[in-house]
Amino acid sequence: MNPHELYMRAALKQAEAARRKDEVPVGAVIVQDGKIIARGHNTRESGKNPCAHAELLAIVRAAKKVGGWRLTGCTLYVTLEPCPMCAGAIVNSRLDAVYFGAYDPKAGALGSLCDLNAIGLNHRFAVEGGVLEGECAQILKEYFAGKRKKRR
Amino acid sequence: MNPHELYMRAALKQAEAARRKDEVPVGAVIVQDGKIIARGHNTRESGKNPCAHAELLAIVRAAKKVGGWRLTGCTLYVTLEPCPMCAGAIVNSRLDAVYFGAYDPKAGALGSLCDLNAIGLNHRFAVEGGVLEGECAQILKEYFAGKRKKRR
Repeated sequence: MNPHELYMRAALKQAEAARRKDEVPVGAVIVQDGKIIARGHNTRESGKNPCAHAELLAIVRAAKKVGGWRLTGCTLYVTLEPCPMCAGAIVNSRLDAVYFGAYDPKAGALGSLCDLNAIGLNHRFAVEGGVLEGECAQILKEYFAGKRKKRR
Repeated sequence: MNPHELYMRAALKQAEAARRKDEVPVGAVIVQDGKIIARGHNTRESGKNPCAHAELLAIVRAAKKVGGWRLTGCTLYVTLEPCPMCAGAIVNSRLDAVYFGAYDPKAGALGSLCDLNAIGLNHRFAVEGGVLEGECAQILKEYFAGKRKKRR
C-alpha cells in the first residue's frame, strides 16, 4: 500500500468513529515525519459545536502536540474535501500538504465549489484529491441512505 | 449610540484584551435577543492554536451557551473582516448577520479578498462592514507600528 493510502485508512478509521456516534462520517489525521501526530472526527452534533469538523479538531490537537500554531512540515489526510472553514484553518496553520478522499461539489473549498488555495492568501499548500475516493465516498453514501430510510 | 456601535465597542474591548497579551488585537462578541452571549479575542500565539481567532472562539462559546451548533437568531460583531476560516465558521454555525469594523484587503473573506457569502454555500447571512471602522483599524495599526519599532 502506498503511504498516502495508509494514512487515508487511518482517516477512514476516524470517519468510522464518527459514524458510530451517528455523526456525518468524516475523519482526518495529521502526519509529521511519517508519524500520525493527531486525529480527529466530526462531532458537530454530539459536541454541539459547529466548528467540530474532523480537520479543525485534528489541527488544534496537532498544534498542541508540536507546541505552537505553525504546522509547517505536516500533512493532513481527510476523507472528504475540506469546507471553507477547514480550508481556511489549513491556510492559517501553514500545513505543507493536504490529501483528501471524496470530492464535495456542494461545499468543497479546494477545487470543487471554490479553491481557497488559489485566491492569493499568504500561504499555499500541495493538494491531491481522490485518495481512496471510493471508500471515502461510500461511508458517507451509506450514512445518508440510512438517514433517509429512518425518516420514511 | 446606535446598537451596532454599542456591540462593536464590546468587541473592541475584546481586541484590547488581545493587545494586552501581545496578540494581534481582534475581538468579537455574539448577540442574541439584544444580549451578548459570548465573547472572544485572538489568542493564536499565547494559546499556540492556529484556530484561536476571535470569531471562532466566540462561535464555539455561543454554541455551548445555546446548547446546540445552530446559532440561528444570533449576530456576530467583530473588529476585523473575517478570514476564510472564520467566514466558513459563520456559514457552518448559521449565524443571521455579521457586522465588522475594519476591512482586510489581504485576507478578508466577506468582500475584500473573496466573498464566501456569495459562492452558493447552503447558508447566507446579512453583512455590514465599516462599523466603527476608524477605531477598529487604529488599534491594529498601533499594534503593528509597535512591532516594527521593537524590531529596529
